Amino acid sequence: MSETFVVVGGDAAGMSAASKAKRDDPSLDVVVFERGEWVSYGACGMPYYVEGSVDRLEDLVSVTAEEAIEERGLDLRRWHEVTDVDTDENVLTVRNEDGPFEQSYDQLLLATGAAPTAPPVEGVDLDCVFTLSSLDDADGIREALEADGVTEDVVGASEGEVVGFLEERDPKTVAVVGGGYIGLEMADVLRTRGARVHLFQRSSHVLSAYDEGIAEVVEEHLREEGVELHLDAGVERIEDDGSGDAAAVVAGESRIEVDMVILGTGVRPRTELAEDAGVEIGETGAIATDEYHRTSDPDVYAAGDCAEVRNVVTGEVDYVPLALTANRHGRAVGQTVAGKPTKGGPVARTAITMVVDLEVARTGITDLDEAREYGFDAVSRTISSRSRSGYYPGAAPITVRLVGCRSTGRLLGASVVGTDRAGKRIDTVVAALHENATVANLERYDLAYAPPFSPVWDPVLTGAKVLNGAIEAPDEPDVTLGPES
Amino acid sequence: MSETFVVVGGDAAGMSAASKAKRDDPSLDVVVFERGEWVSYGACGMPYYVEGSVDRLEDLVSVTAEEAIEERGLDLRRWHEVTDVDTDENVLTVRNEDGPFEQSYDQLLLATGAAPTAPPVEGVDLDCVFTLSSLDDADGIREALEADGVTEDVVGASEGEVVGFLEERDPKTVAVVGGGYIGLEMADVLRTRGARVHLFQRSSHVLSAYDEGIAEVVEEHLREEGVELHLDAGVERIEDDGSGDAAAVVAGESRIEVDMVILGTGVRPRTELAEDAGVEIGETGAIATDEYHRTSDPDVYAAGDCAEVRNVVTGEVDYVPLALTANRHGRAVGQTVAGKPTKGGPVARTAITMVVDLEVARTGITDLDEAREYGFDAVSRTISSRSRSGYYPGAAPITVRLVGCRSTGRLLGASVVGTDRAGKRIDTVVAALHENATVANLERYDLAYAPPFSPVWDPVLTGAKVLNGAIEAPDEPDVTLGPES
Repeated sequence: MSETFVVVGGDAAGMSAASKAKRDDPSLDVVVFERGEWVSYGACGMPYYVEGSVDRLEDLVSVTAEEAIEERGLDLRRWHEVTDVDTDENVLTVRNEDGPFEQSYDQLLLATGAAPTAPPVEGVDLDCVFTLSSLDDADGIREALEADGVTEDVVGASEGEVVGFLEERDPKTVAVVGGGYIGLEMADVLRTRGARVHLFQRSSHVLSAYDEGIAEVVEEHLREEGVELHLDAGVERIEDDGSGDAAAVVAGESRIEVDMVILGTGVRPRTELAEDAGVEIGETGAIATDEYHRTSDPDVYAAGDCAEVRNVVTGEVDYVPLALTANRHGRAVGQTVAGKPTKGGPVARTAITMVVDLEVARTGITDLDEAREYGFDAVSRTISSRSRSGYYPGAAPITVRLVGCRSTGRLLGASVVGTDRAGKRIDTVVAALHENATVANLERYDLAYAPPFSPVWDPVLTGAKVLNGAIEAPDEPDVTLGPES
Repeated sequence: MSETFVVVGGDAAGMSAASKAKRDDPSLDVVVFERGEWVSYGACGMPYYVEGSVDRLEDLVSVTAEEAIEERGLDLRRWHEVTDVDTDENVLTVRNEDGPFEQSYDQLLLATGAAPTAPPVEGVDLDCVFTLSSLDDADGIREALEADGVTEDVVGASEGEVVGFLEERDPKTVAVVGGGYIGLEMADVLRTRGARVHLFQRSSHVLSAYDEGIAEVVEEHLREEGVELHLDAGVERIEDDGSGDAAAVVAGESRIEVDMVILGTGVRPRTELAEDAGVEIGETGAIATDEYHRTSDPDVYAAGDCAEVRNVVTGEVDYVPLALTANRHGRAVGQTVAGKPTKGGPVARTAITMVVDLEVARTGITDLDEAREYGFDAVSRTISSRSRSGYYPGAAPITVRLVGCRSTGRLLGASVVGTDRAGKRIDTVVAALHENATVANLERYDLAYAPPFSPVWDPVLTGAKVLNGAIEAPDEPDVTLGPES
């Protein structure tokens, strides 16, 4: 009799695991339960659907349900919610429109993802208050935007035309709560769609995963694009218009009348099912796993936004709900279940985003206080350089901040901001972190140079040169070098 | 009495060494002899000066003679040629317009650079046959192009206007001999300037440092841009017009009438002075050095395009005359001379170039035969992916080829071709090579992902995934995965 591998959750981690397991061992019965309609979709693309630069929700789906069933041979069941796990008997309780039924498993993957967290304030459950955690949310926001006359036709028009069109009417005013990636991306796309955008951030800077210098560059850019920034402005309540729709956002002295509120205030791992099953929850609040993504129950795996990961810099557990990790760890579980034990590997907390044309990226441990808590003698340097040779047309400013450990010389993390190919430069540092590189060695990397692509010393190399100077001669004053020095 | 550090050659390696030595030890007397007018210039920018996208030759100079003397405190002497080195007495013979004189040194750096090599055929010394090895060469080519009416005004015009303008006259016809970086860049800029370009390549593909698949993408792109490619076409002679100007290029059956010939047929290290001095020349033909860039004479260093380097993949000596190496190794010599012995570090043969809008880059050992000569059990895989998430506007094809060692799992090299930020993706592989990474580890790097920048699996990760499959299960057929798999 063939073994049964059951997956709970049909997005990145779940579908990667299911597809890989079935491909590597076609004798497996692979069952996927997804409680909603959509499977295997690119959640990171939702802001661009709202913007209109991605036409249809279907475009965000990388594997359709039909492909999963017919081409990949998966027993995919949508609109099926798993409500209970009996880990003694290896049996699930599943509910669909016909009622509950039982499903046994030999091996189980919990890929239940993350849920948006709303701030604990009055009014977050009003109509016209949205989170962005599912394709249906994205659809709802786009519909709400279009309801007031912002039609499809306008989206296809040039930026100038959109602005002109909207000036003739009363454009939507939107409050975005939270200045993280989702908040900034939504602020950007809502501006593109002609909305007036108020961004509320509880702390004194957006992008709390970055240092102040980088955040300030982003803030200036947002203001230039017409986003109203409210910093140090924790939202206290969202007011009702009397009919159940959001009407105003109140934060400190400000009360801003709005037509819509978008909450981008973070996510938490969905662990309810794991908790019910008695599977161990880790100190981060996500499901604890070993390096093979196995939970405290030997037949149960967890991967993706519901599970803990290992940080490549600290070696400790971490919670980093991002798309690549979910795909990679899901795939590793698929290989393991198919008979080849595989580690998905640690993560570096790498993230990248585009704010208008500004590219912002980070990796590793960049907060000096946090680095010190992990026992590193942390030091950082920030340099300004350019994206191309100074004489080459289009050379644009790039700022690189690198963090290292003074006592060991080890590289700990980095952040980058700039236009013109700034963002993906972070990948050089990601590679270095995965190999436990020293700052001194990074300084000597033979990175690609030609005038259209980089100064002779790539900005990352200039950063390494300056940081290594600080590591080797800590008492010397900081010198910021130009790109050709 | 203060020590004297003498540098022969005032470009990247020489000026980096001189500036760093003087900065780190201001008590040093630092003398730089440059036989020409220009110092510290970006040779890699010369094609863009010819093109006109860089206005003035001076723009290519990163440190002027005045800055070198007044701000950096260097004793810089231009139009001074060193003609002899007496390593027993530590004395140089130097010639300037007033005749020869002697200069003693405590430590000496040979930074004499590389010289273009012309093919050994009749006619290479005719007028209107150019190499591109000095700023004066670049100036000569630009002047020759402009002599026939292609004025400055046209260069500033839009591409369409330039083409229209040139169609009214008889545009220059130019033969470019050699399909390496300089040859391709010159073919590109000459097309931009409206010239008819014939590119002659002795072997069957351009870019011999790349495999056939990558070269074919580039060749197709060149043809689309209107460059006439002559492959397997070694130039046999350049014919005279009777007045000493080049008139036609003959290769096999073809005889193409031209107004100008550009030779991009490689360079050789300038070692004459080193040979006279009795300094050891290595097996590559360049000056042999240890890891501190010291030659067989303990008071004599060599760095830049005249010196050997160490290859980071093979650990063996190599000859890789490129700008970053010259800067980095020169700087290391400066540190050493100032009292802190410093290794410039190995190189990976990384190179990148832009052909119209196509970005082409490489690093490491990519030729399977060469890899096997070095004892690696080499295997390669090529994948096709995209520059962004498939649904995100502007996603463009990217091809990645990775090479690894089957017996050790080690990564050996890579090449990349595509538009839209393809090129600098090579830096991820460069970092991995510098850290002796395995392909299996590269596959697990937490590279930056967001829809405008990359598919969830960056093309480099997809390449690693496929190559690692081939390493772990060598008998399975090659499967090329799409970017989301």
